Amino acid sequence: MGVSGGLILSLEKHLDKILEIDTKNLIARVQPGVINKHFQNEVEKLGLFYPPDPASQDQSTLGGNVSENAGGMRAAKYGITKDYVMALRAVLPNGDIIRAGKKTIKDVAGFNVAGILIASEGCLAVISEITLKLLAKPKLRQSAMGVFHTIQEAMEAVYKTMASGVVPVAMEFLDNLTIKAVEERFNKGLPTKAGAILITQVDGSVPEQMAWQLSAIEGHFKANGCVDFKIAQTVAEEEDLWFARRNASQSISVYGKKKLNEDVTVPRASLPALLEEVGRISKAYNLPIPCFGHTGDGNVHVNIMLENPETQLEQGQRAMEEIFKCAIALEGTLSGEHGIGLSKAKFMPLAFSPEEMGLFRAIKKAFDPNNILNPFKMGL
Amino acid sequence: MGVSGGLILSLEKHLDKILEIDTKNLIARVQPGVINKHFQNEVEKLGLFYPPDPASQDQSTLGGNVSENAGGMRAAKYGITKDYVMALRAVLPNGDIIRAGKKTIKDVAGFNVAGILIASEGCLAVISEITLKLLAKPKLRQSAMGVFHTIQEAMEAVYKTMASGVVPVAMEFLDNLTIKAVEERFNKGLPTKAGAILITQVDGSVPEQMAWQLSAIEGHFKANGCVDFKIAQTVAEEEDLWFARRNASQSISVYGKKKLNEDVTVPRASLPALLEEVGRISKAYNLPIPCFGHTGDGNVHVNIMLENPETQLEQGQRAMEEIFKCAIALEGTLSGEHGIGLSKAKFMPLAFSPEEMGLFRAIKKAFDPNNILNPFKMGL
Repeated sequence: MGVSGGLILSLEKHLDKILEIDTKNLIARVQPGVINKHFQNEVEKLGLFYPPDPASQDQSTLGGNVSENAGGMRAAKYGITKDYVMALRAVLPNGDIIRAGKKTIKDVAGFNVAGILIASEGCLAVISEITLKLLAKPKLRQSAMGVFHTIQEAMEAVYKTMASGVVPVAMEFLDNLTIKAVEERFNKGLPTKAGAILITQVDGSVPEQMAWQLSAIEGHFKANGCVDFKIAQTVAEEEDLWFARRNASQSISVYGKKKLNEDVTVPRASLPALLEEVGRISKAYNLPIPCFGHTGDGNVHVNIMLENPETQLEQGQRAMEEIFKCAIALEGTLSGEHGIGLSKAKFMPLAFSPEEMGLFRAIKKAFDPNNILNPFKMGL
Repeated sequence: MGVSGGLILSLEKHLDKILEIDTKNLIARVQPGVINKHFQNEVEKLGLFYPPDPASQDQSTLGGNVSENAGGMRAAKYGITKDYVMALRAVLPNGDIIRAGKKTIKDVAGFNVAGILIASEGCLAVISEITLKLLAKPKLRQSAMGVFHTIQEAMEAVYKTMASGVVPVAMEFLDNLTIKAVEERFNKGLPTKAGAILITQVDGSVPEQMAWQLSAIEGHFKANGCVDFKIAQTVAEEEDLWFARRNASQSISVYGKKKLNEDVTVPRASLPALLEEVGRISKAYNLPIPCFGHTGDGNVHVNIMLENPETQLEQGQRAMEEIFKCAIALEGTLSGEHGIGLSKAKFMPLAFSPEEMGLFRAIKKAFDPNNILNPFKMGL
């Protein structure tokens, strides 16, 4: 992950203050060192809502989130960090302080500088202040889980449900290897023979809207091979449904000492093809590849597990490169959330043409002619 | 308005084909010369929905919409063009063809080049293909109108309603001068003594959600001085409610031969202050300034009317400059939708510092070192 401008500043000066929560305009102004989850909690106390919820939310800063364009589980309905950044203040490498964007939904004066600073991995400027859009907190929320015999059926259910017009807050999945790993660690009574489970959440303002959404999801799940559908009726039951997903990442360590984990992303209708290919690669390289993630937006966390990192590393890296190539062939991307940084820099030519890489270098030079901010990141 | 890359190409080669409507992923791929309204109609035939609806939708192309980051009435709920652009193909001034963005909601590989091409007024590249996000078409839709004694009360009602958590599709207003002009032209029985009317629309999936939204809006309107609230019960009644808004722009010609019309935008809670200042400027310069527009997102169309353009032009321009300064002092922008182009180029230094203008020039140079695309636009 690229070191964000926000992090650099906050380490030195603790720029971690929420400067303003403007309840009249549903806007907040923060310093870049504010921790995502702390910010979510503070705005929720006022009945407001900041949707981007990366898995790192307890540790990651809003400055880092902007620099990586962080996503999270709620992206299926609410989008990602870029959908909430209204304005930035930043320090350019030459020391100039600039403001980009406004506290207004519409603003078409000048180039969209805030747009290009988002996800720039600290390569273009040091972000020193962030203005974020807030929403009112939805009054109602409910979760459900569907169990599928095969991962193909589950992936079909994901994109067909989303294409039907239901917009769940989250649509997460765990494959069979991940389910078994969580069960081995925690004994929660999970369906270890299932090919995959989908866990979904909806929100809304009135009970009838919730019932309509859950009934539509149940219908689409069952029409696509769902053999068991359960709606959480209490907060405790909801916590239970989400337990497996929340503990997926740590549980899969049962398959190996080291994991190569990446977050390839494809258009949702290509999820069945992507997961089929991952299964083939797992067999071909004889490495377990448990998968889970944010299928509502096509974002799959693939984890190549190495029992003997010393002897298997190169093999694992070749398997990952095959997965990257497959995602790109399916019109997907190298990274949905994690960014490129140094570790994926060498894969950039898989995804971008020499002309596109040339344009990235020209943009980098326009902001940072002496190449003093995060040199080498993104393969630039 | 800047001439978009899309327009340039389409004039020559009629690049006006819808290349793909992908109902599985809710994505469309179009050439830049496709007319916005034609595209809306085509996707609606498939039960899908493309929200950005600029007033120019019957004439403007999607390429132009991307180049200006066009807004429209539905921005209060659904955002603007940039919220729907997933990927672009573009030709750089040196002839290189690049792709930017993906068919995926999440994509953080490389700089957000699509983000900076949006709203760049054809200054950076010639857009040759656009990939757009679609939504499922909402099943239900309903409109309502509120009449207010004073424009101040109406503007208070706007931001207090929006801050309450109701998210109407549109929240439009007409001031007293505009109401009187429409009435003079069309005799529709409008409340000509009202300080302002607000016209709003909500949508949803179930009737209870519609009722909840309309009842919340009625409550907030009445708590802020609304003296008459009417919900359209039929399509004909809905058309009637919107008639005044749709015919506002042409009707205000009753106040003068020429209009200087701009689209300043402020944070919603600053609407009362902005409109008060416009009233003061109207008196000080002795020029009628009818206002209407998209108050749900703080975007006001101000129209300085000149009876004798020959003698009043300079006076009108000075009045407009005062309005620009006021909008910027209220943390707003020179333009919410129309862009800068040549006509507002001279006002750029009101809104941007020399450092910010310097950065715009550096970005322009990175894309277009020989300055062959739309030179002078935006004051660059």
